[in-house]
Amino acid sequence: MSMAQTLRTNEGGSSGARSASGRMYNFSAGPGVLPEEVVRQAQEEIWDCRQSGIGILEHSHRAPTFDAILHEAVADCRAIGDIPSDYHVLFMTGGATSQNFLVPANLLGQEETADYITTGYWAERTFEHAQMFGKVREAWDGRPLAHRRVPEDAEISWSSSPVYVHMCSNNTIYGTQWRLADGSLRLPKIPPGSFLVCDMCSDIFSRPFDVRDFGVVYAGAQKNVGVAGVSLVLIRDDLLSRKPRELPLMLQYRVMARDESRHNTPPVFPIYMSGLVFKWILRQGGLGALHARNVAKAALIYDVLDSSTFYTGHAERASRSLMNVTFRTPSEKLDDLFVREAYDAGMDNLRGHRATGGMRASVYNAMPDEGCKALADFMREFERRHG
Amino acid sequence: MSMAQTLRTNEGGSSGARSASGRMYNFSAGPGVLPEEVVRQAQEEIWDCRQSGIGILEHSHRAPTFDAILHEAVADCRAIGDIPSDYHVLFMTGGATSQNFLVPANLLGQEETADYITTGYWAERTFEHAQMFGKVREAWDGRPLAHRRVPEDAEISWSSSPVYVHMCSNNTIYGTQWRLADGSLRLPKIPPGSFLVCDMCSDIFSRPFDVRDFGVVYAGAQKNVGVAGVSLVLIRDDLLSRKPRELPLMLQYRVMARDESRHNTPPVFPIYMSGLVFKWILRQGGLGALHARNVAKAALIYDVLDSSTFYTGHAERASRSLMNVTFRTPSEKLDDLFVREAYDAGMDNLRGHRATGGMRASVYNAMPDEGCKALADFMREFERRHG
Repeated sequence: MSMAQTLRTNEGGSSGARSASGRMYNFSAGPGVLPEEVVRQAQEEIWDCRQSGIGILEHSHRAPTFDAILHEAVADCRAIGDIPSDYHVLFMTGGATSQNFLVPANLLGQEETADYITTGYWAERTFEHAQMFGKVREAWDGRPLAHRRVPEDAEISWSSSPVYVHMCSNNTIYGTQWRLADGSLRLPKIPPGSFLVCDMCSDIFSRPFDVRDFGVVYAGAQKNVGVAGVSLVLIRDDLLSRKPRELPLMLQYRVMARDESRHNTPPVFPIYMSGLVFKWILRQGGLGALHARNVAKAALIYDVLDSSTFYTGHAERASRSLMNVTFRTPSEKLDDLFVREAYDAGMDNLRGHRATGGMRASVYNAMPDEGCKALADFMREFERRHG
Repeated sequence: MSMAQTLRTNEGGSSGARSASGRMYNFSAGPGVLPEEVVRQAQEEIWDCRQSGIGILEHSHRAPTFDAILHEAVADCRAIGDIPSDYHVLFMTGGATSQNFLVPANLLGQEETADYITTGYWAERTFEHAQMFGKVREAWDGRPLAHRRVPEDAEISWSSSPVYVHMCSNNTIYGTQWRLADGSLRLPKIPPGSFLVCDMCSDIFSRPFDVRDFGVVYAGAQKNVGVAGVSLVLIRDDLLSRKPRELPLMLQYRVMARDESRHNTPPVFPIYMSGLVFKWILRQGGLGALHARNVAKAALIYDVLDSSTFYTGHAERASRSLMNVTFRTPSEKLDDLFVREAYDAGMDNLRGHRATGGMRASVYNAMPDEGCKALADFMREFERRHG
């Protein structure tokens, strides 16, 4: 009998920490937890979508049913993010890792310069991927600090006139985030004439932001806005006219914008799922309401860290992420035991990335308050037993 | 009240042509119909996948649950297609349209030549997409024949030493297929030293084929092997060492092969769906059994065409597709009426592509015999009323 099976046979028993629905609390860094009401709706609509007599998995990307779904997804996305008409909302494939090269391929000439702020594992990869397309340089490098924080403005060394500056708003692996004390978005002051490109994979739509501060925002959907298989790209229209090199049609932002994300068959179901999540965000009251809840959820766990001599957080306080809480016990052996015992108590995917070790609790929009409370309770109890 | 709602309120009533499950018969060219038992399983497992307590949409691509799903999908694919160990089975994103440029980008040097056999709309696009990567030329062009058939060997004019020959085994829009009289796969006799690249989007795993005849086979999953958002790529290992140019990691077959389709977060759910469809194919008895059924299914509709002076087929008989049956009535007005009345009788997505006009019935693996019978009956009845 697997541990998960044990869990379910305990339903209604004495074990405290588990979802009211009988499922595990899923702290995965991504793909991650979805709102359960969204999953329930998807269950129905893969059989029959919007009373069409055809499930969403089987609908043509040109059928009226999907037309409506795509258009509503774009409209709802605009409503959530207050995205003005001079920005395009695109759904693309290939993950954020593809955006890492699509950004310079589409926007950076071979003789032009772009600045990268390297605040984590993926920011390092992003910088590497960009190197074949132009003169890219690191305006700040967080490696010497083990990526425990993001930089202050005074620490960043800009090029004389970078076309753009690339940043990553939340660093999933290290658990750091560009934030002010209240958890809202802080941005670097970039050189005049540059525009910001932001990898927002792990915190998009978890708090308000003004898209007008950016030329491009991109995010794989699988953390806060849907499932793996689609990426959301917000791009300012004037950038679509940049053409530093010939590219296959499938790799051109302007083609994706012109064809409204349907140059070829798009990932129908992942787009549908983002649409359901957008409607869920609107029902929650939008980004302000979600941010308040996310602050409160993360505080449940950070409060345990702050009142403990047993647990150590990885991130420095001023850069602590509201989405990914990284911490460790005094030993690797206890870390392993923590992960195992948490699993038996109904909490899955708490093991940290190999780059940091320890534990990581990803508490995206869809993680219920109860999941964070259950984890905080478990942490206190574990410390009592092993501290 | 929509037509689909009318349909459902008729359930159990006098209307003859509709699925036993109460859903529409879905003749979409793709994304298209799935086996209903596969849809039912997906409904359960997006709530809780393999008793993990976590739904498949929320599982990490590195989690043990998805490890097993991915490995089983590859193994089942190898079993179905008898794919030997010196071929890789890859799951990629971006659709077959991306494969159109990935093939020459990865396999063709700027000074090398590749031959393209242009047998349809997508074959035309494929040829266009390849042009930025090398010397590509059309060894045969079906446009003057309105793509009513694929070529005989004697009609194809090869280059002196093409690196590869690109073909499309089934032309979805025109309803033609490379086939022998019994419906099995016919291949062009290519120049020695070349290898075949085949776009098998709309007939992969609908009939037996020997992958050893090909260097590369690719197919978007959304017709016969799953849902939109993932493409299946079968590639001979020796081709992975070709490196005609520098490419971003995400565009390299060798990186996808090395990282077993997980260089970054792959489209978890679309891969899962292909895995379910592969297991369904095995339960049906494999490709031989499916082929026999597909021959019989298509015959139900072609028999109506062959015994009618009312309907005209688009494809010449020797090239008629077992997957996409293209036909028209004597007038566009009757074509429109056919599509509308068929919809009211429970059959959706019968309108032909704008390139051909008329009707198209896509009868992929998952289209039940009953759907083809219902369409054939409807065609006869429509002819009686309007012929």
